[in-house]
Amino acid sequence: MTASGPSFEIRTPEGEDRERRVCGQCGFIDYVNPKIVAGAVVADDLGRILICRRAIAPRTGFWTLPAGYMEEGESVEAAARREAREEACADIELDALLGVYSIPRISQVQIFFRARLKSEIAPGPESQEVRLCAFEDIPRATLAFPSVHWALDDWMAARGQPAPVPVMRTQNPGDQPY
Amino acid sequence: MTASGPSFEIRTPEGEDRERRVCGQCGFIDYVNPKIVAGAVVADDLGRILICRRAIAPRTGFWTLPAGYMEEGESVEAAARREAREEACADIELDALLGVYSIPRISQVQIFFRARLKSEIAPGPESQEVRLCAFEDIPRATLAFPSVHWALDDWMAARGQPAPVPVMRTQNPGDQPY
Ligand SMILES: [Zn+2]
Ligand SMILES: [Zn+2]
Repeated sequence: MTASGPSFEIRTPEGEDRERRVCGQCGFIDYVNPKIVAGAVVADDLGRILICRRAIAPRTGFWTLPAGYMEEGESVEAAARREAREEACADIELDALLGVYSIPRISQVQIFFRARLKSEIAPGPESQEVRLCAFEDIPRATLAFPSVHWALDDWMAARGQPAPVPVMRTQNPGDQPY
Repeated sequence: MTASGPSFEIRTPEGEDRERRVCGQCGFIDYVNPKIVAGAVVADDLGRILICRRAIAPRTGFWTLPAGYMEEGESVEAAARREAREEACADIELDALLGVYSIPRISQVQIFFRARLKSEIAPGPESQEVRLCAFEDIPRATLAFPSVHWALDDWMAARGQPAPVPVMRTQNPGDQPY
């Protein structure tokens, strides 16, 4: 195995109508697809929200909700449950779809659920700290991403509704991701 | 450029916890992400639904709704509009989120909107034929995918509702894609 690493160039593959990253070494075409993030606003029986302080880039040290990239062969719900387990050692039960957030600037679609906490919590490898926090005490000034604000706002707007209408949000392509 | 084509092997890259496709020639790691499909149930002023007969694999000759893979840097809504334009030369106006369909077997998340037709229609390069069809006349026996049935059912259930609750559906991992 040479494993020198791929050397990508930007060109339009034959028969296509747009530029792609193509490896000059082996001809591999890197179809960069938008990525799906699954996450949850998790509340305990007291209505406190599970938040995690990020131990990894981007936005290390900032607070976020349990969320992350879907893996191949996984359902959106399974991905949201796995992320809560990985980031906060939390066992959760999904309750309703809260929102679908389209963020073209970073080619992401984020899908957030409302969930109930069914276990103790503890920081996983990607979290410096995890906390159960009353809604009004959430550190809004140090949240990692705009979508964390959106999910929290959509959770609050849906409170008490057994079947909330999920919110479709699209970030302006010019907006900052943080 | 040698462009012999990548030669992938399945192994666990250093520092990771799961197997990936890695090119033995150049070391490129192919992170296979779930793909996002955006689509729409498009109705004209008479309530007829826009359907397209597929000119491409898979399911050539079967009927589908305008839908396709999101491109990088695109919003979900823009992708749904683009697909209607590409497949049926249709200008559409999105009205509400209808459903989010998770299909782990083929690693897809499909996002369907309700939309209004704002133009004439004509087959694009990926369609053999396009048609405006009363709901009860839709050729249910020759629809291309289960998600086409879901989107049609969710459209019918949402009829007359200005703000329908989008349906979250997850296909059983063992189910057939057709
Ligand atoms: Zn290569
Ligand atoms: Zn290669």
